Amino acid sequence: MQSVAEARARILAALSPVAEETVPLADAAGRVLARPIAARLTQPPAAVSAMDGYAVRACDARAGARLTMVGAAPAGHPFAGEVGPGQAVRIFTGAFIPPGADAILLQEDATPGPGDVRVDETVEAGRWVRPAGLDFTLGDTLLMPGRRLRARDIGLAAAANHPWLTVRRRPRIGILATGDEIALPGDPLPPGGIVSSNAHALAALVRAAGAEPVVLPIAPDDAGAIAALALGARGCDMLVTTGGASVGEHDLVQQALGPQGFVLDFWKIAMRPGKPLIWGRLGEVPMLGLPGNPVSALVCGVVFLLPALAVLAGLPAAETATQAATAGAELPANDGREDYLRCGMAGGVATPYQRQDSSMLRALAQADALMIRAPHAVALRAGAAVRIIDLAALGI
Amino acid sequence: MQSVAEARARILAALSPVAEETVPLADAAGRVLARPIAARLTQPPAAVSAMDGYAVRACDARAGARLTMVGAAPAGHPFAGEVGPGQAVRIFTGAFIPPGADAILLQEDATPGPGDVRVDETVEAGRWVRPAGLDFTLGDTLLMPGRRLRARDIGLAAAANHPWLTVRRRPRIGILATGDEIALPGDPLPPGGIVSSNAHALAALVRAAGAEPVVLPIAPDDAGAIAALALGARGCDMLVTTGGASVGEHDLVQQALGPQGFVLDFWKIAMRPGKPLIWGRLGEVPMLGLPGNPVSALVCGVVFLLPALAVLAGLPAAETATQAATAGAELPANDGREDYLRCGMAGGVATPYQRQDSSMLRALAQADALMIRAPHAVALRAGAAVRIIDLAALGI
Repeated sequence: MQSVAEARARILAALSPVAEETVPLADAAGRVLARPIAARLTQPPAAVSAMDGYAVRACDARAGARLTMVGAAPAGHPFAGEVGPGQAVRIFTGAFIPPGADAILLQEDATPGPGDVRVDETVEAGRWVRPAGLDFTLGDTLLMPGRRLRARDIGLAAAANHPWLTVRRRPRIGILATGDEIALPGDPLPPGGIVSSNAHALAALVRAAGAEPVVLPIAPDDAGAIAALALGARGCDMLVTTGGASVGEHDLVQQALGPQGFVLDFWKIAMRPGKPLIWGRLGEVPMLGLPGNPVSALVCGVVFLLPALAVLAGLPAAETATQAATAGAELPANDGREDYLRCGMAGGVATPYQRQDSSMLRALAQADALMIRAPHAVALRAGAAVRIIDLAALGI
Repeated sequence: MQSVAEARARILAALSPVAEETVPLADAAGRVLARPIAARLTQPPAAVSAMDGYAVRACDARAGARLTMVGAAPAGHPFAGEVGPGQAVRIFTGAFIPPGADAILLQEDATPGPGDVRVDETVEAGRWVRPAGLDFTLGDTLLMPGRRLRARDIGLAAAANHPWLTVRRRPRIGILATGDEIALPGDPLPPGGIVSSNAHALAALVRAAGAEPVVLPIAPDDAGAIAALALGARGCDMLVTTGGASVGEHDLVQQALGPQGFVLDFWKIAMRPGKPLIWGRLGEVPMLGLPGNPVSALVCGVVFLLPALAVLAGLPAAETATQAATAGAELPANDGREDYLRCGMAGGVATPYQRQDSSMLRALAQADALMIRAPHAVALRAGAAVRIIDLAALGI
């Protein structure tokens, strides 16, 4: 059996980022940048005022002096002339500093009169002047590829005069749930059946990671039907199946897809929940087979699918982020499987739920975190240091 | 001047959640639930097997015993008969336990023969049996209103047999940037002009918070034009303006909108960056006027707009989350304005950038966090405890 770390490394090594697409700036938020963004102008393009007030020559602007008003410079309307000795120009935040002026007299430090202004506080040269290029200079590289663009980045790309950005397209992820016993929510339920939840939960996880789910029709436990429905993943960047991955006679995914050109890489991992995990390739399409138990499917989604989606999206390869926490209860020694325990968190203390059955979806929805117990981890007392995955922070 | 906390409280108190809408389960991820979700069935509906193996009577299943095979129970195909003394039924994960059986003999602890199966490990009663209702019972309330639905919740709602969910609709937020000096990215730039970045950054922030931005055309510094364009926010749940909020003669938003029925609540806060903040109501539409400097606009977006969007979306009222950190440099005593310093973070240590000018968008895009300095905070040495807002965790 593969360890979790080996399995993840093999999955990530087999994937590469999807192609680029050009999108309007306004649609690029949340997308992963594919090409560097360079400044198309210098910002500010010339020295500008940082405040509302008066553009002055600092050598003139001693407390008590009166300066002759020769014009005004609102933002976007530069003053055409020059500020000569003993003169001032009314100015507003963001407006170009007129030639001759070298400082701003704040309006709260000045008393305007008819045709002039009195300086109430002496002004130092350079005061409240933003020099040209304070934010960035033409040609500066502002944003690098492999970055997920957030509101701040969109603002910066806009300020650098980019109406279009080149990003990675959204990875398309086919999702195929299998099993005679499952039915779609609201559909008639067969005897002994349960409502299908995995495909919908995984579709939401895929969407939360910025990718696009393609939910295929449910496949019954029939090799021919599974094979036919899996063809729907052609053109996807990955196929994710749920169910059919363990050793039971009714676990058919591997059997069904072999004749379709499925090449297996590995199919068991030393992990709980989630031992029966399939990884391989169906023709051109990478395929991840998740277990059918809903908790196993989502925990494997967190541990394997999220990092895989990140690589497809063009982000750096990385494992799912973990945080330090304190054990809220005694923890028994672990066996050979890496354990992901559903726990509640309170003030940095993580307490595993009593019952960890992999069918208990409600407990997973309520859980704050997954506590990771390494294979053969020794028993720990309450208060010991542990590692957790913060589920709320992941947004899943 | 209002304090930040007073201003935020007044803003949040004036808002209420938007109306409900019914959406398909698959579209409900990321939305805020408006009505409780109750279980429409019991899960599992009867005792089921937790493993692949054999349904047996524990009293028969001592190591060495041979049990007669009387049938099979794959998931979704319940065994029609009963398990009598000395009998076993082949069973798979998730399948109903047939009447008479009270435990599962794991397939790895059994040796199948022709027509029978040998017990290799003694089985305890109840072993590997999931009782009816282990996950939830018909009528249980599983998810409560005011929760943003994540992948786990979507899975749980599916398992509880809900094809439709009632959520809050996405708040619609009108965004109006003002200023003669600004132009859209890629458009011709007037002399002394700068490229408009606020509307696009705020639209991305609004979208990241699950709301829907309506970006209005840029308004020139003209009262009539501002008034006409602000009408475009009719039917929005809030209007956000940028620029035109300070005391300069060219700050026109308040003047322009007064004749349109604008009622001011307050318009100055003891904050840096971001002193000139307008809060009021334009007819029926709550209006938040943000400063024009890009850093001020986004910092006020984090401090005021994000909490406002949460209330509109139906989430509990709360300030933007802060975390504990350690100061990476000496901090001077603060004046009367609450300060939000852009800083880099390294291992829990927050170090403010040297230059904190509110026009420096590139520095904001690079910043890891905002360090909060309360009004009149005393000087601190490096290593002192401070509070920060983690910008990456906010996804903006």
